[in-house]
Amino acid sequence: MVYIYDTTLRDGAQTRGVSFSLEDKLRITQALDELGVHYIEGGWPGSNPKDVAYFDEVRKLKLKRAKVVAFSSTKRKGLKVEEDPNIQQLVRTDVPAVTVFGKSWDLHATQGLGITLEENLELIYQTVEYLKRYFDEVFFDAEHFFDGYKSNPEYAVKTLKVAQEAGADCLVLCDTNGGTLWYETEEIIDAVLKEVSSPIGIHAHNDADMAVVNSLIAVKKGAVQVQGTINGLGERTGNANLCSIIPNLVLKMGIECIPKENLKKLYHVSRLVSELSNRPHPVNLPYVGENAFAHKAGVHVSAVEKNPKLYEHVEPELLGNKRKIMVSELSGRSNIVSKAKELGIELDKKSPEVKKILEKIKELEAQGYHFEGAEASFELLLKEALGKGKKYFELKGFRVLTEKRSEDEEAYAEATIKVEIPEEVARERGLKERFEHTAAEGRGPVEALDKALRKALEKFYPSIKEVKLTDYKVRILNETAGTEASPRVLIESTDGKRKWGTVGVSPNIIEASWLALADAFKYKLSLEDEREEGEL
Amino acid sequence: MVYIYDTTLRDGAQTRGVSFSLEDKLRITQALDELGVHYIEGGWPGSNPKDVAYFDEVRKLKLKRAKVVAFSSTKRKGLKVEEDPNIQQLVRTDVPAVTVFGKSWDLHATQGLGITLEENLELIYQTVEYLKRYFDEVFFDAEHFFDGYKSNPEYAVKTLKVAQEAGADCLVLCDTNGGTLWYETEEIIDAVLKEVSSPIGIHAHNDADMAVVNSLIAVKKGAVQVQGTINGLGERTGNANLCSIIPNLVLKMGIECIPKENLKKLYHVSRLVSELSNRPHPVNLPYVGENAFAHKAGVHVSAVEKNPKLYEHVEPELLGNKRKIMVSELSGRSNIVSKAKELGIELDKKSPEVKKILEKIKELEAQGYHFEGAEASFELLLKEALGKGKKYFELKGFRVLTEKRSEDEEAYAEATIKVEIPEEVARERGLKERFEHTAAEGRGPVEALDKALRKALEKFYPSIKEVKLTDYKVRILNETAGTEASPRVLIESTDGKRKWGTVGVSPNIIEASWLALADAFKYKLSLEDEREEGEL
Repeated sequence: MVYIYDTTLRDGAQTRGVSFSLEDKLRITQALDELGVHYIEGGWPGSNPKDVAYFDEVRKLKLKRAKVVAFSSTKRKGLKVEEDPNIQQLVRTDVPAVTVFGKSWDLHATQGLGITLEENLELIYQTVEYLKRYFDEVFFDAEHFFDGYKSNPEYAVKTLKVAQEAGADCLVLCDTNGGTLWYETEEIIDAVLKEVSSPIGIHAHNDADMAVVNSLIAVKKGAVQVQGTINGLGERTGNANLCSIIPNLVLKMGIECIPKENLKKLYHVSRLVSELSNRPHPVNLPYVGENAFAHKAGVHVSAVEKNPKLYEHVEPELLGNKRKIMVSELSGRSNIVSKAKELGIELDKKSPEVKKILEKIKELEAQGYHFEGAEASFELLLKEALGKGKKYFELKGFRVLTEKRSEDEEAYAEATIKVEIPEEVARERGLKERFEHTAAEGRGPVEALDKALRKALEKFYPSIKEVKLTDYKVRILNETAGTEASPRVLIESTDGKRKWGTVGVSPNIIEASWLALADAFKYKLSLEDEREEGEL
Repeated sequence: MVYIYDTTLRDGAQTRGVSFSLEDKLRITQALDELGVHYIEGGWPGSNPKDVAYFDEVRKLKLKRAKVVAFSSTKRKGLKVEEDPNIQQLVRTDVPAVTVFGKSWDLHATQGLGITLEENLELIYQTVEYLKRYFDEVFFDAEHFFDGYKSNPEYAVKTLKVAQEAGADCLVLCDTNGGTLWYETEEIIDAVLKEVSSPIGIHAHNDADMAVVNSLIAVKKGAVQVQGTINGLGERTGNANLCSIIPNLVLKMGIECIPKENLKKLYHVSRLVSELSNRPHPVNLPYVGENAFAHKAGVHVSAVEKNPKLYEHVEPELLGNKRKIMVSELSGRSNIVSKAKELGIELDKKSPEVKKILEKIKELEAQGYHFEGAEASFELLLKEALGKGKKYFELKGFRVLTEKRSEDEEAYAEATIKVEIPEEVARERGLKERFEHTAAEGRGPVEALDKALRKALEKFYPSIKEVKLTDYKVRILNETAGTEASPRVLIESTDGKRKWGTVGVSPNIIEASWLALADAFKYKLSLEDEREEGEL
C-alpha cells in the first residue's frame, strides 16, 4: 500500500503563470478526494492570507477519504516554537496532518539560512516535537535531501534521524533541484534504509526528466508516501506527475494506492486542473493527454481497429480517456470512415463520397483547419458532402467596429448584421419575415458579433437562447508572420445537455470567429432537427 | 561513446498537428548537424514525395558530421526485394545508412501483417541482406521488441538474430507502444545481451513516462545508439526526448556523445524545432524550457543570487539557456531589483520606487498582464515608474472596421487613426505639424491598425520603418468565459539588430493589440534615444 500525497495546491501553485483562486482550490480539493488520494497539501498558511482562508473553508467540504495537510518551514532561529507565527498558523488550521520542511543539505543551512549545522538540527527537532503534540501525523520534508547526501551523507542522514527521534511519522526524501538520476536514487535510498526505521516518502522534481521514475523506484524500495502534483505542475520543470505515477503503480506494478475503479476519474481531474490553472492541457501527457491514445498514420488506424492492444499499452477507458482517430493531413480513407462511424454515419471506404470528403479536408487543412476539438464543424462538413446538409440561415453581411477615442477611454465595439432564412423554413414555421437586420454592442468585437448574431437568429429559432459559449480560443497559425498571420478560432458551446466544438480559419480574426460562431449555431439547429425527426 | 540518432524528421513528424515543409526539414537537418548528432533520419522515401525530394536536396547541404539516414519497412511479402518499390526508393536515396523496421512481436506479424512467423523472419533477412550490398550501414529497428519479448521471448530474440546474421550493423530495440517500465527494460536488455553479439540500440516512446530513463538504462547496459527526437516530438505521448537524454549523458553520466561545447546549441535547436513545427515551445521542458531555470518565489531568488548551485542542478549557460528571475504575483522586492539590474537599472531594494513598481505590477497582473516574454513592456513600465519615461506620441483615437458583405465575399478591414506628438519633439525635430490623421487597410483588423499606426508615426519618426513584427500571439485568459474572455496579446518585434517583446491586455482584442503595438514602437524610439545619448 502506498499513500498518494498531492501537492498541486501548494508546490503546483508555484508554477510560472499559475494562480489558483480560493474557489479553484476548493474545487480541486473536492476532485482529488473523489479520485481517492490520501493526502491533499492545501497550502502554506504562514505565507499568504488566501491559504489561511482555504483552511477555514475546506473544513466545510465533506471529504470522503482525503486528509487535508498544512505546510510550513521549520521554526525560525531565535524564536520559541510556540511564538513562531508560521508554526502558530499551522496549529490554527486544525487539520489532521502537517508537513514541515527542513534543510538536509549542509550548504543550505550555512549559506541559505546562515545558521550552524547544529542549530539546523535543533530547529528540525523542536518543530517536529512541538507539532506532534497537536497533530495526528507530522511529516518531515527533507529538503534537498539527495543533493545534501551527495555533499555530506552523514549530515543529511542526521537530519532524518533527528526528525525521526522527534516523532515524525514519515521522512520524505526531497529531490528539490530535480537533478538526481535513477541509479543515484537507488543507491541513496538503499543507504538511507540502513540508517532509519521510520517510514520514508519521496518528493521529486523533474529537472533531469527523472521525477516519475525516481518516485517509482522509491516505492519499489519501500517508500510508503509519494508526493507529486496533477499534470506535474510545479516550479521550473515541475514536480513528479501523479497522472503518470498512479496508473503505473495500479496498472503496471500492481501496487495498491487509489481504488482501481477510481482511475477512470484521472482524465477528468487532469483536465480540471489544466482548466483552473488557465493553461492549455498538454496534449502529449502520458495516460491523460488528448493525444495519449490518438492514432494518425493510416497503417496504425487499421491495426488498432483489428486489435487495440497492438498499438496501445493500456486501454484508454481505464483512465477515462478515449481513443482518437485523427482526421489529419496523413489520413487515409479508413480514418474518415472510422470518424464518420463515431458520429453515427455509415460510409463505404471505396465510395466516391469518401474521396470527395478527403479532398475537401485536405483543402481545408492546407488553409489551417484542424478538426480535432471541432467535431461539430466536421460533422456539418460530412453532412454537407453527403448531401444531408441543411441551410438554416444565410449571411447578408456584417460590420464590426471597434473604436477608441483617446488613451484614457476604454475601447467600444459594435456589430451590425443581416441574415436571411430560407423560404421553406419561413413556410414551415409560419413566419412572414425572412430577413433580420440588427445590431449589438460588446466589450470586444467578437462579443458584439456573437450578440448580434444571436439576436438575429432568435427571432426565427427560439432554441438558440439555450446555447451558451463555454470556451473561445485563438491560435495564430504561422506565428512568425507577424500580424499577417492566420488566426484559427476554436469555440466550445453547450445547450445544457451536450457540448460541441466548432472551428473557423481566416486571415481576419473577426471572420474566423464568425465561421466558428455560425457553425456553433448551425450545429445546435441540426440537433433540434434530429430530435424532431426522432419524435416523428 | 554513444551515437545519437535523431528521428525528429521522421517519427517526430508523426506528431498530431505537425507538418514540416521541405524547407523546414532542411533547416532542421542543418541545425542538428551543427549540434553534432551522428545520424539524422530524414524520412521514409517510400511513403511520400516530400521525403523523396528531401533526399535529393539534402545532398546539397555540406554536413560536417551527421550522416543522413533513410527509413523504410522491410520488403513486402510476395515481392522480390529488388522489385519492392519501398526498397528501391531507399536505394535511390544514395545516403550512407538506412534503417529498416521489422516486426518483433509475434502478434504483429500474424495479426497486423497476416503472415506466418517464418515468413516474417524471411522478410527481415532478405531485406537487410540486400540493403547491405548498397549501404555502409544498415540498422534494424526491431519494432515492438519489448512487447514482443513479453509475449514470446524466443521469437523476439530470433528476429534480432536473423537481422544480425543478414549483416545488420545495429539491432535497435524499440518500445513502440511505450508501455515498458524501467525494471523491465533492465531485465530484457540483460537477457538480449546474452543472445546477440551485434551492437544494440534503443528507440523508446513515452506512453508510461519512461522514454528517457529507458534510453539511458540501455546506454548504461551497453547500447551504442540512442534514437529520439528533439523536444520528444512524436505520435501520442512522443518519442524519447534527446534534449533530456543528451545533457544527462554528457553532464551527469560522463558518457561521450556530442562534443561537450556543442551542448550550448541545444536550447537553440529545441526552440527552432518548436518554431518550425508551429507549436508553442513547452515551457517546462527539462534543460531547454523557458522555465527550466526560472525562479519565482522570493526565497529562491535571494538564495540563487548567493549561490546558484543551491537551486540549480546544472548551469543554464551550458545548454544555451538562461536563468530567469520572474516578475510575478508572488515576487518580492529582490525580484524587481534583479530584473532591473538585468536591464541595466540599479535600484535599492528598500527604495519607495521599488514599492511603487511592485504595486503597479500587482495591479497589472490582476488584470491579466504577464511580463514574461514582454521585457520591453516591463522596461517601459520601470522607466515610467522611475520618472525616466518619455512620451513619444499620444493616441487621439482610432476606429477599426471589419466588414463582410456576403457569405462568398472575403472580409475586409480598415483602420483610421489620429496621433499627436509632444511639442518638444516637434521643436527638436523642426516639425510644424504635430498631428497625423490617417488610414490603412489590412486582411484583418490588427494588420490594418498596425499599418495605420506605422503610417502615422513614420511621418515624425522615420526609423519606425526599420521595425518588423516577427511574432503575434493571442492568449485568451479565463478561457471558460466564452467570447467575454480577456485576450492577452504578445508581440515580438525586431529592427534587424535586436528583438523585443511587448504585451497588451484588454477585454477587446483590438485594444489589447493596440497596447502591445504602441509599446513595440515606443520601445524602438527609446532605443534610438539611448543611442543618441550614448553618442553625445
